[in-house]
Amino acid sequence: MPQPDPSSRPALGVGMVGYAFMGAAHSQAWRTVGRVFDLPLRPRLAAIAGRDPQAVRAAAERHGWAAAETDWRALIARDDVDLVDICTPGDSHAEIAIAALEAGKHVLCEKPLANSVAEAEAMVEAARTAAERGRIAMVGFNYRRVPAASLAREMVAAGRLGTLRHVRVVYLQDWLVDPGFPLTWRLRKEAAGSGALGDLGAHIVDLAQYLTGDDLAGVSALTETFVRERPLPAAASSGLGTTDASAGKGAVTVDDAAVFTGRFAGGALATFEATRFATGRKNALRIELNGSEGSLAFDLERLNELDYHDHREPAPRAGFRRILVTEPEHPYLEAWWPPGHGLGYEHSFVHQARDLVRAVHTGEPVAPTFADGLRVQRVLAAVEESAAKGSAYTAVE
Amino acid sequence: MPQPDPSSRPALGVGMVGYAFMGAAHSQAWRTVGRVFDLPLRPRLAAIAGRDPQAVRAAAERHGWAAAETDWRALIARDDVDLVDICTPGDSHAEIAIAALEAGKHVLCEKPLANSVAEAEAMVEAARTAAERGRIAMVGFNYRRVPAASLAREMVAAGRLGTLRHVRVVYLQDWLVDPGFPLTWRLRKEAAGSGALGDLGAHIVDLAQYLTGDDLAGVSALTETFVRERPLPAAASSGLGTTDASAGKGAVTVDDAAVFTGRFAGGALATFEATRFATGRKNALRIELNGSEGSLAFDLERLNELDYHDHREPAPRAGFRRILVTEPEHPYLEAWWPPGHGLGYEHSFVHQARDLVRAVHTGEPVAPTFADGLRVQRVLAAVEESAAKGSAYTAVE
Amino acid sequence: MPQPDPSSRPALGVGMVGYAFMGAAHSQAWRTVGRVFDLPLRPRLAAIAGRDPQAVRAAAERHGWAAAETDWRALIARDDVDLVDICTPGDSHAEIAIAALEAGKHVLCEKPLANSVAEAEAMVEAARTAAERGRIAMVGFNYRRVPAASLAREMVAAGRLGTLRHVRVVYLQDWLVDPGFPLTWRLRKEAAGSGALGDLGAHIVDLAQYLTGDDLAGVSALTETFVRERPLPAAASSGLGTTDASAGKGAVTVDDAAVFTGRFAGGALATFEATRFATGRKNALRIELNGSEGSLAFDLERLNELDYHDHREPAPRAGFRRILVTEPEHPYLEAWWPPGHGLGYEHSFVHQARDLVRAVHTGEPVAPTFADGLRVQRVLAAVEESAAKGSAYTAVE
Amino acid sequence: MPQPDPSSRPALGVGMVGYAFMGAAHSQAWRTVGRVFDLPLRPRLAAIAGRDPQAVRAAAERHGWAAAETDWRALIARDDVDLVDICTPGDSHAEIAIAALEAGKHVLCEKPLANSVAEAEAMVEAARTAAERGRIAMVGFNYRRVPAASLAREMVAAGRLGTLRHVRVVYLQDWLVDPGFPLTWRLRKEAAGSGALGDLGAHIVDLAQYLTGDDLAGVSALTETFVRERPLPAAASSGLGTTDASAGKGAVTVDDAAVFTGRFAGGALATFEATRFATGRKNALRIELNGSEGSLAFDLERLNELDYHDHREPAPRAGFRRILVTEPEHPYLEAWWPPGHGLGYEHSFVHQARDLVRAVHTGEPVAPTFADGLRVQRVLAAVEESAAKGSAYTAVE
Repeated sequence: MPQPDPSSRPALGVGMVGYAFMGAAHSQAWRTVGRVFDLPLRPRLAAIAGRDPQAVRAAAERHGWAAAETDWRALIARDDVDLVDICTPGDSHAEIAIAALEAGKHVLCEKPLANSVAEAEAMVEAARTAAERGRIAMVGFNYRRVPAASLAREMVAAGRLGTLRHVRVVYLQDWLVDPGFPLTWRLRKEAAGSGALGDLGAHIVDLAQYLTGDDLAGVSALTETFVRERPLPAAASSGLGTTDASAGKGAVTVDDAAVFTGRFAGGALATFEATRFATGRKNALRIELNGSEGSLAFDLERLNELDYHDHREPAPRAGFRRILVTEPEHPYLEAWWPPGHGLGYEHSFVHQARDLVRAVHTGEPVAPTFADGLRVQRVLAAVEESAAKGSAYTAVE
Repeated sequence: MPQPDPSSRPALGVGMVGYAFMGAAHSQAWRTVGRVFDLPLRPRLAAIAGRDPQAVRAAAERHGWAAAETDWRALIARDDVDLVDICTPGDSHAEIAIAALEAGKHVLCEKPLANSVAEAEAMVEAARTAAERGRIAMVGFNYRRVPAASLAREMVAAGRLGTLRHVRVVYLQDWLVDPGFPLTWRLRKEAAGSGALGDLGAHIVDLAQYLTGDDLAGVSALTETFVRERPLPAAASSGLGTTDASAGKGAVTVDDAAVFTGRFAGGALATFEATRFATGRKNALRIELNGSEGSLAFDLERLNELDYHDHREPAPRAGFRRILVTEPEHPYLEAWWPPGHGLGYEHSFVHQARDLVRAVHTGEPVAPTFADGLRVQRVLAAVEESAAKGSAYTAVE
Repeated sequence: MPQPDPSSRPALGVGMVGYAFMGAAHSQAWRTVGRVFDLPLRPRLAAIAGRDPQAVRAAAERHGWAAAETDWRALIARDDVDLVDICTPGDSHAEIAIAALEAGKHVLCEKPLANSVAEAEAMVEAARTAAERGRIAMVGFNYRRVPAASLAREMVAAGRLGTLRHVRVVYLQDWLVDPGFPLTWRLRKEAAGSGALGDLGAHIVDLAQYLTGDDLAGVSALTETFVRERPLPAAASSGLGTTDASAGKGAVTVDDAAVFTGRFAGGALATFEATRFATGRKNALRIELNGSEGSLAFDLERLNELDYHDHREPAPRAGFRRILVTEPEHPYLEAWWPPGHGLGYEHSFVHQARDLVRAVHTGEPVAPTFADGLRVQRVLAAVEESAAKGSAYTAVE
Repeated sequence: MPQPDPSSRPALGVGMVGYAFMGAAHSQAWRTVGRVFDLPLRPRLAAIAGRDPQAVRAAAERHGWAAAETDWRALIARDDVDLVDICTPGDSHAEIAIAALEAGKHVLCEKPLANSVAEAEAMVEAARTAAERGRIAMVGFNYRRVPAASLAREMVAAGRLGTLRHVRVVYLQDWLVDPGFPLTWRLRKEAAGSGALGDLGAHIVDLAQYLTGDDLAGVSALTETFVRERPLPAAASSGLGTTDASAGKGAVTVDDAAVFTGRFAGGALATFEATRFATGRKNALRIELNGSEGSLAFDLERLNELDYHDHREPAPRAGFRRILVTEPEHPYLEAWWPPGHGLGYEHSFVHQARDLVRAVHTGEPVAPTFADGLRVQRVLAAVEESAAKGSAYTAVE
């Protein structure tokens, strides 16, 4: 019998910069997306870039990339790379993304968009110019594409919650509780920009703005660094490195936790908390929205579920219902498993890739755009400004 | 056979002022406490006071009080009243409590202690003087005596949480969401002092300070009134009254919601939220404490449970455990039902009465004292001050 | 001013036999019911009976009974006793209940109705005769009157579940896991009739038949005694007594656990499990009903909640909702606290007392009747017969 | 720079038969496993077989298989196929598996192993012979490799539960509730062998035997077909096909639900329920084990969690803890994401593939073996026999 045509669809060459945690997650998404969803283009894992020749080569083999480069500029220069996927720490986002866009590539940039508002503004400008040439720029707030979050957005947009009154969001982890945890790049301001604020706070600010369809107008904040000195890591580049006793200690220059209140433009009150010191909470991104007609609640530790209260129902039969977000009618679920057969964390990246590939094909922008990323950056800047000014209520630019 | 002696124990005559929701709850406690716990004194429901002769007489009969008075001063003057239990709105607390203490009575005063710091200070002063004569003054923060909360305090005090890093508290209700809900006394500043802040916020500030064994050092706050006008109630005195269409509308002069962040003296960061606009949440007082060695979480809607994470356990077997707080070793549980046979909201008042009666007998002060109530009042004042000053971080006096 | 009339309503003199765990729960109900609900008769705690003069006198004083008797016949003979409340072990139910009914008293009899079908039949006959003289006989399946269970019954009766397909019930406790727990009366067949089956199984069989409005047609069962010998208790009468090392060991003559499947007359399949060996489960009576139009789930360890799935809703928004059964429209809730302020285990007895007092006043029978109790007894007998016959499916008489 | 070597490891050619739901899940596993885990062999998606030329070709392209065959015998005959992965309905398992083993291939066979004990016995015999030549035969009870289930097995094997007393398992789905759902192959005895019993019951019997490390000694069962006629599907081969009104109706020849009790060889009592009529339950495989020293509970709808109660802890601090099974020390988690970043349903197939590839490399058998599958088949046969004999307790061969 005739053997199948490998694929009749045009390829989309992807080049990835960075190959740590995010690199692994993105690789799994690029390998999977075309096998699960019907796509107009066939993603091809063309090349990966990293500084250490041996490590990047091993990563390429492990994750299925066809080639490896030790300089991201070489990666951008490749003809077989149509889209640059940036998985590095925040301090290099602006430089790489702008170069890639200028080189005519599409860009997917991990969050937070940048380490400063100025950098983010430059990136938005570059994206604006590139858009004129049909290039797509997306920022990787992947949690928007956890199906339960997408469903929540649909329900808010359909008016099921009425007028929003309260937004309450926390993102709780606990991996910094041990004071012996080393001083990795995430704890140094020059690399990470900020601490829990940029890492976790960026996610929840974006998610809150996405779900509400509204923007934070102002914030009032407190931040804290509970453990001010930590052992230097054995190897500077390591994400979760072991420590080196002889290396001594260094100062933690970012926040360990940030709490802030705020007002949305539409009038809702909000509370936010981002911390890596909440013992027992591993990845507890929890968001609750209360509106005049209903409420929604979500917890990333139970990511296949969305709790919904319909306040229009008679009180004696009303209550928060647990929607198992695994029905074929739910966002992204048409392509996966039967009801009740849950998805995991990594699927949010597959869904992000799906929508990005489709946008590349149509040339239409896809959210979250760099402008969305800038909006988050401005909130984070207002949080830091408020914290520095004795928690004074600070308008978001 | 010999018939039982009605009781050999000396009586403690109780006189109650007010007989709405709180009056019913306190009555149930006074009727029950001596039947369940071994007490050195036998509480006697001597008299109840209220302005409306017919209503107070009906309340006395319904709730089992031996006599009724239409003037609280007459109640205080009765020889058979040893302890005055104040269940009125906050604007009359100071006057009644001070008069009762000066008349040599013990006092239990519902929360919040008063509607202002100045009133609360005068009450503390009166309590101090009365204490010299062996009189007890207690404020009714009854949630301290939900067994799960008492157990939480024991666990914190025993050091099971290590150094506290985070305190996160919300008190969510939804009974004001309907803009047609009438303008009862709880929505008028002159009677209630404040809105969600004094009603719900007072509870969570006290509970947070109790559980941590620490005081809030400063706060930064936002408050909001979502529905600024409401129909006037048909009958002014009604707690949950129907509206009178002909009566027109009046201005809501208190907050509908208050959100604030804060720092505890010991260094923990805190977030607080009090609202009556969280659709679907009926009585969701939720508190979570994260410390370096462990965490606790409690939800008043599931008041027989306390969640505990022991961070000293090996990570692969650690997790939040749900302690069913119904074991005989748990606080107050020695007198109730077998394990798993849960208690309800009203039992917190029985436990409060137990400890108050014992304190009256020994003459030793019992927490929460009026000083504890003042401390809460000062936090609420700082919250209002911060909200008025653009959320500026405001030290608690 | 005029003092309140103690009460204008006619009294209903209650006499109670037995004063252990159930006696305490019933006393609390009799003291409370007339203070919370509007009743046509005023319950009066007239007298209590028990064999030990000192203990019964102490119980009377503790629980508020006006008189004490050491012979239940004397209690029945009292003119001030209109209703006899039987809280003894099952082996004395028939004798006391029949005598009380013949003496013209109303009767409330704790569950299980009797230790054998023959006894239960005689009791039903006595109740039938007494009913002709307007006497009420009720059996104490109190869990029917946990508000969430009453609400569940209302919802099933209203057709919300459609045709029932599955009934799945467990009643899990763990207090016999320790082999050192003594051989109390509950572990001896002559006193208790059976073990987990009569103690816990009786509750779940009644509750399942009540909620479905249907009867079990047949069952297939396995029973087991895991610990076959236990230390003799120090004092024979003790409910939860300490052991006496010198007393030696005795044989456990009842089941430790019973599991059975069954068919309801209406076609639903059922599974049942009753055990006191489920470590960590304290009072986990869990019942789930699945029908063609919806499902309900209940757990006694969270007794203020009822989970409901409405299968007629569009699948993408459907899910089990947690109804907090504390709304004023919910069964029995009109008299208690505001929404979200939960009730406890003991309130089921207050509700039972309310409905019994009203039935005494109207003369109309109130469920669960002795006939309901007999029906349960017949199921338990079929379970024992099936277990003895190699699990053969055994029709319920 | 040097480009990475595609892979230095020897390939393992996989050939798959069938490409519906299970085919998609297995394809995702084969594509992923070598990218996430370190494997001694490199799985290669060599060929896929199916009867419909166009469909199988499309499936090959979609899922990434290098070739397509329309005859499974041709697939077995291919030199580039080392391992045959059987994803067809149960009626063809025996023929394909035996042929593949005789051809010297390794075999992975979906569950249930076969539609009869006789077929399963022949397969075990073929596997025994093939094992002598170093060939591996595994049956696809993938739920063993959900990390929480694997962890549960580790904990039982380590003695953390003490002596097992109770095993309680349900597998609840609801996709057959609608009587308009068509008569697909899963509802015809000749294709599926049995209904909920073989589809869902096989999973829970295997899981219960795996987790306990014990075998069911006997069972007593009831089965039922609630909807006895259904519309014929438009296309016979369709898994979830639409109906064809003109096609009329046909008889459902399998069970809709099966409930059974049982005894494990080690003395534990068990209850089982398998149904596709539990409205609102989508994939609720729930298992609870109670032992003398502790208990475990698992729900497939929350597959990243395992609840554990340690009964050796002091009662006042004991309770079911929710272990988030996402720590690097947990089974299979060393290769995935940081703590709290959950996995999904499909990962169980990746883990199955990992262990199978390693077994192929070492030549050591890997559980679940065909003998494990036969053991399940014997339990299912005993269930059917008991149901046919009036629920008589029936020993498992």
